[in-house]
Amino acid sequence: MENNIEMFKNKIRRIPDWPKKGIIFLDITPLLNDEKCFQEIINILYERYKDKKINKVVGIESRGFIIGSALAYKLSAGFVPIRKFGKLPWKKITEEYELEYGKDKIEMHKDAISENDNVILIDDLIATGGTAKAAANLIKKLGGKIIECCFLIELKSLSGRKVLEENGYKVFSLIQE
Amino acid sequence: MENNIEMFKNKIRRIPDWPKKGIIFLDITPLLNDEKCFQEIINILYERYKDKKINKVVGIESRGFIIGSALAYKLSAGFVPIRKFGKLPWKKITEEYELEYGKDKIEMHKDAISENDNVILIDDLIATGGTAKAAANLIKKLGGKIIECCFLIELKSLSGRKVLEENGYKVFSLIQE
Repeated sequence: MENNIEMFKNKIRRIPDWPKKGIIFLDITPLLNDEKCFQEIINILYERYKDKKINKVVGIESRGFIIGSALAYKLSAGFVPIRKFGKLPWKKITEEYELEYGKDKIEMHKDAISENDNVILIDDLIATGGTAKAAANLIKKLGGKIIECCFLIELKSLSGRKVLEENGYKVFSLIQE
Repeated sequence: MENNIEMFKNKIRRIPDWPKKGIIFLDITPLLNDEKCFQEIINILYERYKDKKINKVVGIESRGFIIGSALAYKLSAGFVPIRKFGKLPWKKITEEYELEYGKDKIEMHKDAISENDNVILIDDLIATGGTAKAAANLIKKLGGKIIECCFLIELKSLSGRKVLEENGYKVFSLIQE
């Protein structure tokens, strides 16, 4: 597993000044593109959750869809998308969260989660944890049990883990930066 | 397989007047949410492509990511996202396509496909075929061999299949409407 993490890290492309000056963006497309890495990532997550009776994997738009749906398939679970405001067509619940400047909203369909579903929440990256906390709250509102919030990459200096843990959610990240 | 298709159709939710008046939107979230349907869809596509030496599955943002990534995983292939204009952070190629009113653009990273990669292109739905043709052109520009363009749902009256076939691409759809 240690060797795998190094292999994954080497496949993450660092893009300076994107999406704006001063930020180094972590581009995971080379990691997804590499069939060996992609297999290994899903297999590691599958091993972690296979005995947890997971029946829903929830992915946050849009990179969370990529990891989340492959894992849902492997776990024989259903896949649930959490989308940006205004994208889902049916009855939905909404959560607001803070951005650096201003606010944003995410949504989930009202019938996406049933009472006592065992849920994994997935996104590609956790930074300040604002989006993830809003997403976890959506699942909780519908009565889902969040077994763990799972991220491919955790930016440790931004303390998103703390925000989730203080709200009672378990956190796992594959790669720490 | 016939029985499965009926089961899939029953899980598609029809939303009248969305995203605008006069359109009946086909909401696939209940289909993805149902673990049995989601398994079956990916398994059927896997059986179709397992002997084709597929090494890349390309999904179109964002519902194409959901079907595409699970299939990529099952086929032991890499996953490639095609994204809306301005979303990808690195060097990219761009294709423009016509909308009902105006134009739009999609993009793919320049290193996403290698010469002679065997590629499946995936989206959730084909309507007029404009987006799919632009996506297929991106793959072709980088030298990829498109084994097939694959859709969960085909809106037959809008003739998107014809647009792709006239340009030399093979088309498969699981559900026809």
